[in-house]
Amino acid sequence: MAAAYEELDRDSFAALTLDRLARRSGVHVSTIRRRWRTVEGVVVELLAERSSMLPTPDTGDFRRDLTQLTQAIADFNNALRNRNVLQGLLAAAAHDPRVEEIVRAAFVRRIEEVTLIARQAVERGEIPEDTDPREVIAALAAPLYYRVLILRGSIDERLVHTTVETTYQATVAGVFVRKESREGNRKGDREG
Amino acid sequence: MAAAYEELDRDSFAALTLDRLARRSGVHVSTIRRRWRTVEGVVVELLAERSSMLPTPDTGDFRRDLTQLTQAIADFNNALRNRNVLQGLLAAAAHDPRVEEIVRAAFVRRIEEVTLIARQAVERGEIPEDTDPREVIAALAAPLYYRVLILRGSIDERLVHTTVETTYQATVAGVFVRKESREGNRKGDREG
Repeated sequence: MAAAYEELDRDSFAALTLDRLARRSGVHVSTIRRRWRTVEGVVVELLAERSSMLPTPDTGDFRRDLTQLTQAIADFNNALRNRNVLQGLLAAAAHDPRVEEIVRAAFVRRIEEVTLIARQAVERGEIPEDTDPREVIAALAAPLYYRVLILRGSIDERLVHTTVETTYQATVAGVFVRKESREGNRKGDREG
Repeated sequence: MAAAYEELDRDSFAALTLDRLARRSGVHVSTIRRRWRTVEGVVVELLAERSSMLPTPDTGDFRRDLTQLTQAIADFNNALRNRNVLQGLLAAAAHDPRVEEIVRAAFVRRIEEVTLIARQAVERGEIPEDTDPREVIAALAAPLYYRVLILRGSIDERLVHTTVETTYQATVAGVFVRKESREGNRKGDREG
């Protein structure tokens, strides 16, 4: 993992090969191949490992939690090697449905973890009851990944600010309140 | 172009080759290669052609314009072949800086076109003066591409609704007002 991370700091995902990993790590290429099968396998595990190191903020204040989470995602993606990992994985996903599913599942799991922020804000009465926590987190993450993946730029201070404010105001205004509860028509199905 | 579009309706970008394009179009492969050089070259032109067919809404109402634009982006990306084009191009961009720059420029140009929506809303007095129109459009587009590229899902009615409302409310609340004008410190520099 450390060897893969170092390689991606020097070069793009496209340049990464199992042979280069073997050379840098001192582990025989057949051993690497047995455990991870492909370069994509190594990098998916690397992404999971790195992103699980991101803490879930819990400051007791919804806006402050959103700001800390946004800043953490920004710092993570502004590191060239992490951006290389992400772009490489999405490239691999376009070619391989198994990689696609692994990437998707990794993001869904990470979103699930940080929904804690929205769930606690509901408990504290800061945001409307029946707010969908996954929609809140996706709204926060989307502008950051749009900047990195589509506009191919880094996440600057201004984008952190507008993203936090946009998400905060929409959440407080009830945009992410589940539809069936907004219609005053509760059916006991909270999944929407 | 038509041949490439048909091929991408049947199969992913990864399966597209100049030979397959030659076979479907009846144009000799050397002719295709002379004009576009690579499969990426063909697909970049295809993306530009298809996305320039999207109209810029001009209904006289900011929220209605946002809704129509969001629905158009949703319809575009919910078509499998358009999604194949986009994912294929981003995969190619991860491997080739020239493709990366072409993709980035295509999105920037498209954003610039549809900023008309925000500029007219400013003129009508619907949203604050000195709103940055590019930030408004990026905020609208981001959740849609996050859904397609990261969560690998289609853009449903609910996402269209929450995206329009989030962008609308943030814009009206002044989140996208340029910083220097918000600080009451106008310097004649409107580019921020």
